[in-house]
Amino acid sequence: MRCGSGKAGPSPRAPRHRRRERQDVKTVTAIREVRAWRRYGRGSVGLVPTMGYLHAGHLSLVDAARRENDRVAASLFVNPTQFAPTEDLARYPRDLERDTRLLETAGCELLFAPTVEEIYPAGFQTSVDVGTVAAPLEGARRPGHFRGVATVVLKLLGIFRPDRAYFGAKDAQQLAVIRKMVRDLDLTVEIRACPTVRETDGLAMSSRNVYLTAEERHAAPVLHRALLAGRDRWAAGERAAEALRQTIRSVLAEEPQVRVDYVSVADPETCRELETLAGPALLSLAAFLGKARLIDNIVVGDEPAPRD
Amino acid sequence: MRCGSGKAGPSPRAPRHRRRERQDVKTVTAIREVRAWRRYGRGSVGLVPTMGYLHAGHLSLVDAARRENDRVAASLFVNPTQFAPTEDLARYPRDLERDTRLLETAGCELLFAPTVEEIYPAGFQTSVDVGTVAAPLEGARRPGHFRGVATVVLKLLGIFRPDRAYFGAKDAQQLAVIRKMVRDLDLTVEIRACPTVRETDGLAMSSRNVYLTAEERHAAPVLHRALLAGRDRWAAGERAAEALRQTIRSVLAEEPQVRVDYVSVADPETCRELETLAGPALLSLAAFLGKARLIDNIVVGDEPAPRD
Repeated sequence: MRCGSGKAGPSPRAPRHRRRERQDVKTVTAIREVRAWRRYGRGSVGLVPTMGYLHAGHLSLVDAARRENDRVAASLFVNPTQFAPTEDLARYPRDLERDTRLLETAGCELLFAPTVEEIYPAGFQTSVDVGTVAAPLEGARRPGHFRGVATVVLKLLGIFRPDRAYFGAKDAQQLAVIRKMVRDLDLTVEIRACPTVRETDGLAMSSRNVYLTAEERHAAPVLHRALLAGRDRWAAGERAAEALRQTIRSVLAEEPQVRVDYVSVADPETCRELETLAGPALLSLAAFLGKARLIDNIVVGDEPAPRD
Repeated sequence: MRCGSGKAGPSPRAPRHRRRERQDVKTVTAIREVRAWRRYGRGSVGLVPTMGYLHAGHLSLVDAARRENDRVAASLFVNPTQFAPTEDLARYPRDLERDTRLLETAGCELLFAPTVEEIYPAGFQTSVDVGTVAAPLEGARRPGHFRGVATVVLKLLGIFRPDRAYFGAKDAQQLAVIRKMVRDLDLTVEIRACPTVRETDGLAMSSRNVYLTAEERHAAPVLHRALLAGRDRWAAGERAAEALRQTIRSVLAEEPQVRVDYVSVADPETCRELETLAGPALLSLAAFLGKARLIDNIVVGDEPAPRD
């Protein structure tokens, strides 16, 4: 699976020139430095917004951005407004030095690593609400989360004015929220999604995997196995959403370390729970393993059905 | 007084070439047509968002936009989301043919006059909240008004990507809301304000003046007179906000046709009521004359004070 916009359409234009394989990444912390970089450079710009502590999933986004744009920038900002007060903002893992090396090797040209005050100066108040797509699933468990996500992404799009922005499919609802915002607000950026990158045992890569103890890490691939079992049942012809949820739940139940937060079979665009599957469906889950709360998903039926 | 950004700073660059005095205005109704116009033209773009039924105030915005940009576009959209259910959406005056002629004479190149469905297609849900600046005054009397204004302006900025956008100083809180949004969301557009244009008897030009009966029209200049009385008292050294409000109210009270909605002396940037004036102040009011609800304002002390 290649990264995609989630819609049928023309592929992005090939960039006018290729970047050399390895270059120094320029790290800036001020919005005006990003604007200067944007203004004085030429060609299309791909943006990879991240919260840092990069893994192969992030690097696949940089890689896709390099293939499709003349210039690639990443942002590294652990956005406080998308964490609820009870969540892991303070202990969210950080390693700017390592991240910088990884981005350099991946061929990223600019890294924007602002302070919280640069993004939210005193008196900052504006926020974006994208409506019902942000309400269920992660939105229901993490109050204010998607308001924070949408607002910071809108700001990053305003700061960078990228031609394309890259997000991982692992955060499926985030992707749906951002796409909805971009569509509703008539932003000209193209939102590109890249497939979830997994460890060899199937665990979706996540900066939060660092929270897992050895024992929990050993148990964690059950999340993906459960989703695969759901997909198998779908492939065998099951179209009742509740039957698929049950299949996923029953696999998760085999692993006593896992505490299920939710199991969902929903419309990938609206994130509304389905009753019967007539088209593509987002099979997703959230689960606690010890202190870590992990999410994962698979989309089934995402190839457009042949027209009658 | 010239149009201004409200901040000390360099003047806008002179446009690279002057438009000819009169040209056909191209009227489009689809967002993709605006994007095509934007993409295939060169030079800076000034946008004048309007709700139509144009008067000399609007034309002064077009004029300012022509002086400061290579290309000038206007939008004409009576935005339903900024009207409360009880308000005058249905009877808001419209005359597209006359507006088109006026824009043509004023040297506007493009007119975007979309349908409601073009701006708010089925499923549209996203909205922008700019926080406390939108809460008092018009925001308190017109629930949801500034959410509607901010959202549609953000959309228009996304559609046109103008270098500068022009708004009348008569809608002072609207201006503060839009400036706050642009600053908080790191949009690159420059917001330019142009002075309120008045009839010879002082009445601020407004599309809603058409609602006035002959008798009400005769009484209406009292709004401006009241604000001038407030300014006079300020010029005489009064710095207690409540004293200024009293002065304004007492002038309004002389006119039995006027039903005061509010009289305010507030910070022009935050729209918070002041107690004592230490810097610039927004003297504003809203009042009913028959069926029409009119607003007007004057800013005092807007010349930056000399530094110690």
